[in-house]
Amino acid sequence: MTYEFWYWNGIPGRGEFVRLALEAGGIPYRECAREPGVDASDLVADMRADRDSPPFAPPYLVAGDMTISQTANILLFLGERHGLAPSDLAGRLWINQIQLTIADMVAEAHDVHHPIASGLYYEEQKAEALRRASDFRAQRMPKFLGYFERVLARRGDWIGGGGRWTYADLSLYHLVDGLLYAFPRRMTTLARDHPRVMALHARVGGLPELQAYLGSGRRLPWGDGIFRHYRELDGD
Amino acid sequence: MTYEFWYWNGIPGRGEFVRLALEAGGIPYRECAREPGVDASDLVADMRADRDSPPFAPPYLVAGDMTISQTANILLFLGERHGLAPSDLAGRLWINQIQLTIADMVAEAHDVHHPIASGLYYEEQKAEALRRASDFRAQRMPKFLGYFERVLARRGDWIGGGGRWTYADLSLYHLVDGLLYAFPRRMTTLARDHPRVMALHARVGGLPELQAYLGSGRRLPWGDGIFRHYRELDGD
Repeated sequence: MTYEFWYWNGIPGRGEFVRLALEAGGIPYRECAREPGVDASDLVADMRADRDSPPFAPPYLVAGDMTISQTANILLFLGERHGLAPSDLAGRLWINQIQLTIADMVAEAHDVHHPIASGLYYEEQKAEALRRASDFRAQRMPKFLGYFERVLARRGDWIGGGGRWTYADLSLYHLVDGLLYAFPRRMTTLARDHPRVMALHARVGGLPELQAYLGSGRRLPWGDGIFRHYRELDGD
Repeated sequence: MTYEFWYWNGIPGRGEFVRLALEAGGIPYRECAREPGVDASDLVADMRADRDSPPFAPPYLVAGDMTISQTANILLFLGERHGLAPSDLAGRLWINQIQLTIADMVAEAHDVHHPIASGLYYEEQKAEALRRASDFRAQRMPKFLGYFERVLARRGDWIGGGGRWTYADLSLYHLVDGLLYAFPRRMTTLARDHPRVMALHARVGGLPELQAYLGSGRRLPWGDGIFRHYRELDGD
């Protein structure tokens, strides 16, 4: 079965966490919103179609009769179905827990540049963004990265332990990649105290399973999505 | 087995979503941070203990050898283990999806009064909170509540369909309860267009399984947690 995957075109966004799992897992999928003649209004129409389990927002995955949404939930499904996470109960819950913690940091990284409203431009909330960015850099980045560092110190090369990556490793790679893009100065400082996190970023970036994807046009560049680079929001 | 449940004492917080599932499911648990002689520093010490799956933050549940954290992840576990969600794949994922959407709205409801930093007082970010509250009331509340209304229109009395509540129904009850406390004027207006959501709130509040708990001192009152009532942040 080829999955139908739906996410806004033009940005990596939350869809990229799903895409990395699909690509690294060698799982066939259609990127529906990037097919010829399809635009954002088609995505909205599809999302609003009458179905048993309607999504609140993209990304979502159509898998036969099922429509599955919420990034961590899609990954939970793919992890179980395609062996991208441990199959035992403790291992499954652990990988889901880390994915949800990554999702929390992703939401905060977004709110750095949009602390007031998603519907307003950055320029309309820049003063507030400066304040929030200062707290994010000083308090939140060390707290989250310190936690992931501690996890890897305990577990070894991969979050799940054992000798293989899970979907949470792919997600942590993408999170760190986004932080490096959005906060290059701050990450230069923080990298020194988080060698295991940085090594995981390099390790996933070098996975043979991902090379074709990372070198393809399907991997969209960073831009105006969740992770944005504004010089004034970065700092040592 | 009696679970050990850990969450900050003094506020309902995110812990309350887990507590409602434990109580409505008749599942034995210890509320560790409320036991005599235990204070917040004990919680922090326990949380930082060396273990295989350390929590990033409370709430967390110790179940024998496993430590499970992230609210939605704890509920996923309890749902499977104690029949608080459908057992088939599509049903399990659906309830998790709704729980994650509820969690998204909970995070936004918190950020209404703390849009800049959790570590600052409300009074230090009141100007920003006024702006964020205005967007939350106008855009986000109708968007989320409209989604839940649509879900119930499709599924019937309970989110999972069928004749029984799931943990996501309990969580939606608690979310609506928090919104009614924090935004009484706005909710008076919105209640008119969301009769199914309000009926679910009443239905869960009347569940026989919950009466002993809701009437007990264990159900903490609203206060200075995620849902806070500031008159200036509410409006029609």
